[in-house]
Amino acid sequence: MSHTENKLSVFALGGVGEIGKNMYAIQYADDIVVIDCGSKFPDESLLGIDLIIPDITYLIENSQKVRALIITHGHEDHIGGLPYILKQLNMPVYATRLTLGLIEGKLKEAGLLADTERILITSDSKLTLGSITATFFKTNHSIPDCLGVVFHTPEGNVVHTGDFKFDLTPVNEQYPDLHRMAEIGRNGVLALLSESTNAERPGFTPSERIVGEHIMEAFIKAKQRVFLSTFASNVHRLQQVVDAAHLTNRKLALLGRSMVNVVKIASELGYLTIPEGMLVEAGEVNRMAPERIAVLCTGSQGEPMAALSRLASNSYRQVDIMAGDTVIMAASPIPGNERNVSRTIDNLLRLGAKVIYGSGSVTGMHVSGHASQEELKLMLTLMKPTYFIPIHGEFRMLHHHGLLAEAVGVEPGNIFILNNGDVVDIEQGAARQTRKVIAGNTLVDGWGIGDVGNIVLRDRKHLSEDGILVVVITLSKTEGRILSGPDIISRGFVYVRESEGLLDEAGRIVADTITKLQTENVNQWSSLKISVKETLGRFLYEKTGRRPVILPIIMEI
Amino acid sequence: MSHTENKLSVFALGGVGEIGKNMYAIQYADDIVVIDCGSKFPDESLLGIDLIIPDITYLIENSQKVRALIITHGHEDHIGGLPYILKQLNMPVYATRLTLGLIEGKLKEAGLLADTERILITSDSKLTLGSITATFFKTNHSIPDCLGVVFHTPEGNVVHTGDFKFDLTPVNEQYPDLHRMAEIGRNGVLALLSESTNAERPGFTPSERIVGEHIMEAFIKAKQRVFLSTFASNVHRLQQVVDAAHLTNRKLALLGRSMVNVVKIASELGYLTIPEGMLVEAGEVNRMAPERIAVLCTGSQGEPMAALSRLASNSYRQVDIMAGDTVIMAASPIPGNERNVSRTIDNLLRLGAKVIYGSGSVTGMHVSGHASQEELKLMLTLMKPTYFIPIHGEFRMLHHHGLLAEAVGVEPGNIFILNNGDVVDIEQGAARQTRKVIAGNTLVDGWGIGDVGNIVLRDRKHLSEDGILVVVITLSKTEGRILSGPDIISRGFVYVRESEGLLDEAGRIVADTITKLQTENVNQWSSLKISVKETLGRFLYEKTGRRPVILPIIMEI
Repeated sequence: MSHTENKLSVFALGGVGEIGKNMYAIQYADDIVVIDCGSKFPDESLLGIDLIIPDITYLIENSQKVRALIITHGHEDHIGGLPYILKQLNMPVYATRLTLGLIEGKLKEAGLLADTERILITSDSKLTLGSITATFFKTNHSIPDCLGVVFHTPEGNVVHTGDFKFDLTPVNEQYPDLHRMAEIGRNGVLALLSESTNAERPGFTPSERIVGEHIMEAFIKAKQRVFLSTFASNVHRLQQVVDAAHLTNRKLALLGRSMVNVVKIASELGYLTIPEGMLVEAGEVNRMAPERIAVLCTGSQGEPMAALSRLASNSYRQVDIMAGDTVIMAASPIPGNERNVSRTIDNLLRLGAKVIYGSGSVTGMHVSGHASQEELKLMLTLMKPTYFIPIHGEFRMLHHHGLLAEAVGVEPGNIFILNNGDVVDIEQGAARQTRKVIAGNTLVDGWGIGDVGNIVLRDRKHLSEDGILVVVITLSKTEGRILSGPDIISRGFVYVRESEGLLDEAGRIVADTITKLQTENVNQWSSLKISVKETLGRFLYEKTGRRPVILPIIMEI
Repeated sequence: MSHTENKLSVFALGGVGEIGKNMYAIQYADDIVVIDCGSKFPDESLLGIDLIIPDITYLIENSQKVRALIITHGHEDHIGGLPYILKQLNMPVYATRLTLGLIEGKLKEAGLLADTERILITSDSKLTLGSITATFFKTNHSIPDCLGVVFHTPEGNVVHTGDFKFDLTPVNEQYPDLHRMAEIGRNGVLALLSESTNAERPGFTPSERIVGEHIMEAFIKAKQRVFLSTFASNVHRLQQVVDAAHLTNRKLALLGRSMVNVVKIASELGYLTIPEGMLVEAGEVNRMAPERIAVLCTGSQGEPMAALSRLASNSYRQVDIMAGDTVIMAASPIPGNERNVSRTIDNLLRLGAKVIYGSGSVTGMHVSGHASQEELKLMLTLMKPTYFIPIHGEFRMLHHHGLLAEAVGVEPGNIFILNNGDVVDIEQGAARQTRKVIAGNTLVDGWGIGDVGNIVLRDRKHLSEDGILVVVITLSKTEGRILSGPDIISRGFVYVRESEGLLDEAGRIVADTITKLQTENVNQWSSLKISVKETLGRFLYEKTGRRPVILPIIMEI
């Protein structure tokens, strides 16, 4: 798609119509600035797929125009695509200190650190990116060091909020910069892109402080050890756990790779303050007096290999949960993880632990990091945009965010609910959405980026449901008779030892089919294969009600 | 397990430590009475499995002692196992009128109707089942005609609540019989088995009437057609939809097989009153004035093939959703169904429908059919049991129900949190839980009941993740050289046309491996196969990061 006119274009390569894999682009004439580079996890229909990242065909085709990749914050749905995307297209990466710290860990693992230009920014930075100038404003969210971005273009200013809430009593002084937001609004916002995760949720998201108070209460009440599991990246919450442990005179152990990793980076960069000598090794936990130790661990989503799940199933090598210990689940289950979280809680209760879970007012061990409806209206009111593009969310979230925008006075015709790839073009003050760029899911499987397509996935689905039956037969090229076989091998269909009769009968049916066709002088492999598949498929369905993949292998010698 | 002593035993064959597949048993001396015969759906780890039912080995081994199968109500988690279980063991089935109506439909489909003795009971029935006498009491729940059961035994009385709530303003006069419950309690309850689905939920579950009021409001407000999707078995709710349609002068169409089926049975049996001439065929909907028609449909869980999902994706043949139509989702997503429900809502919104969803106070289109904590305490207080066995629920629900029982005065030592198969024996007034009977999951796959085991499931899992590679090679028995192949066939691993290079290289590696081994005079098939698997597996992992199932087929001619 050529794009040389002097117009402003805004589009998503990921993040609208879905949760995760955020990637947006602002283009003015020959300058493209990309915002965020997220990944998301596949749902259960994408069998064997490890990760989904945005399809960046458009950026690759316009690589000489891409001026910058700006990252708003360090969550996986904003940085998780970097190790794969940067292999496809090298871009200079702009981010704040903590965000860069987290990114650098990823790039190192992927062997991309040396080749990637990384530029540290703050909320006071001003970047000249061709015809686009970028400035920033502080927001707060469930990870420190988040930014919103203002793109100053000849056509007008475009604001991208990143993820945010308005926590007016934040931990560690991470205030949202209301005054700068007001100033941005006063100077005129042509288009606002604002996050929609909680657009269906009425009210105002509670402050992270509330969680701190509940954590403190639980620590004070606990007579034995306290285990707390949360997202490692929620550094504010980690700080509150550190504070509660300190106040109740407990040492702190860290379990889980990402917990150890984030605590290290956040402490080194000054986002997390841990008293000298407070941290102890996992191996110490079982040896310490139960009222003198607390444990911060991964696994709040019930991930089977994470620390908490292993503790719950009594298979963590160095640490045991004892009856009477307190376990705090300081996170809500992300949709799709409910079963794993429930299993973890059940296992902990079976061990006799007191488990505090649920985000209700009763336990209050979790608050969202995202703006609820009143905060979304606050952002819209501060920015007073002419055009509004809700981002970060599935369709119904974007739809509800659109209704909120209408409610605070944005013209209904100026609200664009986009699909990934839909382009909003703004020229001489007028916006239209008529064209598309390529956008979609790139599937990551093992080392492969984008090499697994629909045929492979369909086969996996079919294999997963009823397994496979391989039928091997060798024919004599000269005489046309069966030299060996049919041998039948089953995987995932029936257990051979218990189904010998069935498989023997299947073998006879194959032999009969082939002999009969050869008597009729049908010798093409393709006809033989189709007949074997059909006859055998019908027989197996009648006998078992299942339709395994049937793979006839006919060899001629 | 022999069991001839005069003692009372209570156990679950399904339904504790899980949601679904309810089946309980009461045994006194040589008399066994079974309660309920449910099924449940497999989670995503049980690939290809259609349904899970209880393992009834114990009942089969003691078939001459089984006196009755009593069904408390007509939900799938209480009757869904019947078509499979009755094939394994023929038992006389006792149930109320609506429940029998629903059961008979199932038995007919399974060809079991003629051979199954069915006995109609009411809340006033009294059954003599060997040494056990059963009487009943009315409860209410999200389906009409529910019963709790009292088992009168020489050792004392055991009460099984079935599913219940205390809806004191029920639809269609389906009151819970508080007075009889009080009488049962006054006469002495040795052991109470009470359902635990909502044991984590504080308060008192709202009345179904509330939903009726909200449905009525939505019908009055709607300017075009109204679609409402709910569980077909929620006859009370169907009645309220009928009433709202009648009051707003709308005809009613039914979409979805189970909706049509339940409405037919419930109307015939007098549980649902539909005004003469109100029902119209699906084909009429598009032809009628939008304000004169309402539609009741299946698909409230976002099931891909159900009516609402097909309406939402614009693929229902006879009916279209028009912009401005109102769609009411009168159900909460069951855990595991969230993604499908969200997708359905998104699709409906894209069509321009007004979608009312969510069970919060804002929309109020759904209330639970299960007792919350205050109602569970009410039941415990009415029954005043000596021993308490919480049933119907995952471990944490049973655990919380146990805490509620303690709170209302049951001795902590008299509360038994069971696993399926754990037996509580009560003899001379004293209860002990020391022994087990066989219990577990029987997997239904196609026509097969219990023939898919761990090996087959493990294979399906492996196949689903990285697919399969079949390597076929023919060797000469006499000369030991390769006569044909290696031929490599891939399913679900990589797409062959795009990976020819990889597969060619794989073929060379296999040929080299075999040639090398034969030079070394290694000729056993097993050694050849293991070498091919190892060498090829290593090569493929290095190249792709994936570990497909490798199936070497070596034929000697």
